[in-house]
Amino acid sequence: MDTEKVGAITDEEIFRAHEGGKLITASTLPLDSPRDLSIAYTPGVAQVCEAIHDDPALARKYTWTGGNVAVITDGTAVLGLGDIGPRAGLPVMEGKAQLFGRFAGINAIPLALDTTDPDELVATIARLAPSFGGINLEDISAPRCFEIERRLDEMLDIPVFHDDQHGTAIVILAGLRNACKLTGRELKDLRVVISGAGAAGVATTRMLLDAGVADVVVCDSRGIIHPGREPLNEVKRDIAGMTNPRGLTGDIRVALAGADTFIGVSAGHLGEDDVAAMAEGPILFSLANPSPEIPQEIALRHGSVVATGRSDYPNQINNVLAFPGIFKGALGAGAKHITRNMKLAAARAIAEVAAADLAPDQVIPSALDPRVAPAVTAAVEVAARNDRFSGARRATRAKD
Amino acid sequence: MDTEKVGAITDEEIFRAHEGGKLITASTLPLDSPRDLSIAYTPGVAQVCEAIHDDPALARKYTWTGGNVAVITDGTAVLGLGDIGPRAGLPVMEGKAQLFGRFAGINAIPLALDTTDPDELVATIARLAPSFGGINLEDISAPRCFEIERRLDEMLDIPVFHDDQHGTAIVILAGLRNACKLTGRELKDLRVVISGAGAAGVATTRMLLDAGVADVVVCDSRGIIHPGREPLNEVKRDIAGMTNPRGLTGDIRVALAGADTFIGVSAGHLGEDDVAAMAEGPILFSLANPSPEIPQEIALRHGSVVATGRSDYPNQINNVLAFPGIFKGALGAGAKHITRNMKLAAARAIAEVAAADLAPDQVIPSALDPRVAPAVTAAVEVAARNDRFSGARRATRAKD
Repeated sequence: MDTEKVGAITDEEIFRAHEGGKLITASTLPLDSPRDLSIAYTPGVAQVCEAIHDDPALARKYTWTGGNVAVITDGTAVLGLGDIGPRAGLPVMEGKAQLFGRFAGINAIPLALDTTDPDELVATIARLAPSFGGINLEDISAPRCFEIERRLDEMLDIPVFHDDQHGTAIVILAGLRNACKLTGRELKDLRVVISGAGAAGVATTRMLLDAGVADVVVCDSRGIIHPGREPLNEVKRDIAGMTNPRGLTGDIRVALAGADTFIGVSAGHLGEDDVAAMAEGPILFSLANPSPEIPQEIALRHGSVVATGRSDYPNQINNVLAFPGIFKGALGAGAKHITRNMKLAAARAIAEVAAADLAPDQVIPSALDPRVAPAVTAAVEVAARNDRFSGARRATRAKD
Repeated sequence: MDTEKVGAITDEEIFRAHEGGKLITASTLPLDSPRDLSIAYTPGVAQVCEAIHDDPALARKYTWTGGNVAVITDGTAVLGLGDIGPRAGLPVMEGKAQLFGRFAGINAIPLALDTTDPDELVATIARLAPSFGGINLEDISAPRCFEIERRLDEMLDIPVFHDDQHGTAIVILAGLRNACKLTGRELKDLRVVISGAGAAGVATTRMLLDAGVADVVVCDSRGIIHPGREPLNEVKRDIAGMTNPRGLTGDIRVALAGADTFIGVSAGHLGEDDVAAMAEGPILFSLANPSPEIPQEIALRHGSVVATGRSDYPNQINNVLAFPGIFKGALGAGAKHITRNMKLAAARAIAEVAAADLAPDQVIPSALDPRVAPAVTAAVEVAARNDRFSGARRATRAKD
């Protein structure tokens, strides 16, 4: 672990902090007298039950589902550790739940499910829906994650959001907006190479297209994704159909030649020659952790703006900038889905916070910047209300 | 609502107390610096994930599953309200979760599931198991509840406990122990009539037999349950086979004649003549809420010891005396099941707390008595360790 910014952290300290878990539940009411019990529990509670039975919409008001979120994984793609199973994934879910509380005052419940079958996951999560105001999917491997999110979003009338896809995509777009502003570029004119066609790569591709970027080329471990390449899974076939306008084929070097933006959401590595072949002063977002696709000293030598996934480098692409405010805004607006407009609004809000002090090492706010979550919340809430007002198409359609 | 003990409670007060729900989640760690985030979340958390991946038993130590419980319903038998659905059942689950925290420091999560199909319930709850240290089933209708609990207990290696069954049975047995002591009776010599063959009636029957009561007669709405009665569902056929040693048939009046104990866990009502036909100074536990099976003035005129389900009468049979300590003790011992011995130990511990000041209106401790949960916890933990030591048969077998 890098010690430059956080000081030495020992293994012992980490394990000690995790003892007994990182989350508790607590009552919002006193339970010290028969009177207290009669209000919170029987017989008083029966009235509240009957009221909700008569009008299920009241559950939002009279239970914690108006402000709680399930953080759900199947343990198949936990951090960079891969398929480590539900129990081993729990510490990350607990951490995520802590962040929901810390940054947006959202009550979040970590749930690690003992199945990896998409049908079973969808059925299980759908049955859990009455207990929650929103569903944050987490660390579910691609391409299963795309189908699972799509089906749940179609079935449920509460927000469903796979953070590894959209949280990452939103923060990338925020950083890219500011990088363009700083370097005198326009989003629509960018030539973007995305390395990685997993959860983050696919969602980032769609998000950049939604934001107006015209020239996106996506590469996976087998090179540039294009319609003539066989075999392509369904998601990659979609990607092939909507990207790569110049019809490039070959490996990532073909894509990088003359490109002005690199976004790495993979495990691949680039050398200095690859970066030197890009346009002058490229925007370089290398999010692989802990080793960015482009080594930091090379990136800093060539790039006009450099971002990574590391907390000890400037411009960290950290999902915590997005998901607390996304859910807080969605829950506040009573939104049934997280729409494209809500995601674009979140990216814009994050970018605007950093825009106040724009500099090459400050295109993205710090993960702890207290201005971010309120700004994202407000922007998402407005977008949700506008969507409802304009009868916008459902999020699931917007994603296609 | 009776105002004698709790003072007037307005509807407005009840609804206001429920606004926003009754439960929150909170972090046990500070999350205020990059260092804090590096310990609780990335990159530090990865070490804890890997440790659990190498040894899944460590999840109990390094996640909150060592001390948390899911409070799960399908909304089919909520309080006396019946099948009101999962959303309307949530306020009760939240209240129960509060009680777990208040009396045993257990983190409890209310989950209301959107299915009533036993297979789907079993599958869903089993998939949730990695996220919890125990499963408290709640307000699931009979006879579905018996099968659901049995199957989950067989499948899972964490405690599964249907509180409407066993919590009630445990507190009834506790009260009955003290009522016997007070009236110079022995459990084994009692002639007990149980009215009601739902969750509580069936579990109480089994528990009293386990505790040594020899003569139990169970009645449902169609009268005495006996092997010759058709049709009987599977659970009632089991009951018929293990109760009613004198082979009684007919309605509840036949059973009551000369009996010295009545336990009502139904909606039926008895008149003064019925009670007068019992043995002299009977023990009368009428748990129907809010109207006990035997009107209180009649019960007090005839009974030597009277208990009800009401918080405003003496001797309230309240499950909160049992479930917090049951789970606290089971989790403390690392028990995989709630065994017969653990339940008997809980009943004995509850009885012993009240035995210190035994009186006809004090055979059961107050729901708020602070001595109860620690006593139950300790007794259950010892019983769990003894069970493991003696290689006791699994709870599922003990229940048969």
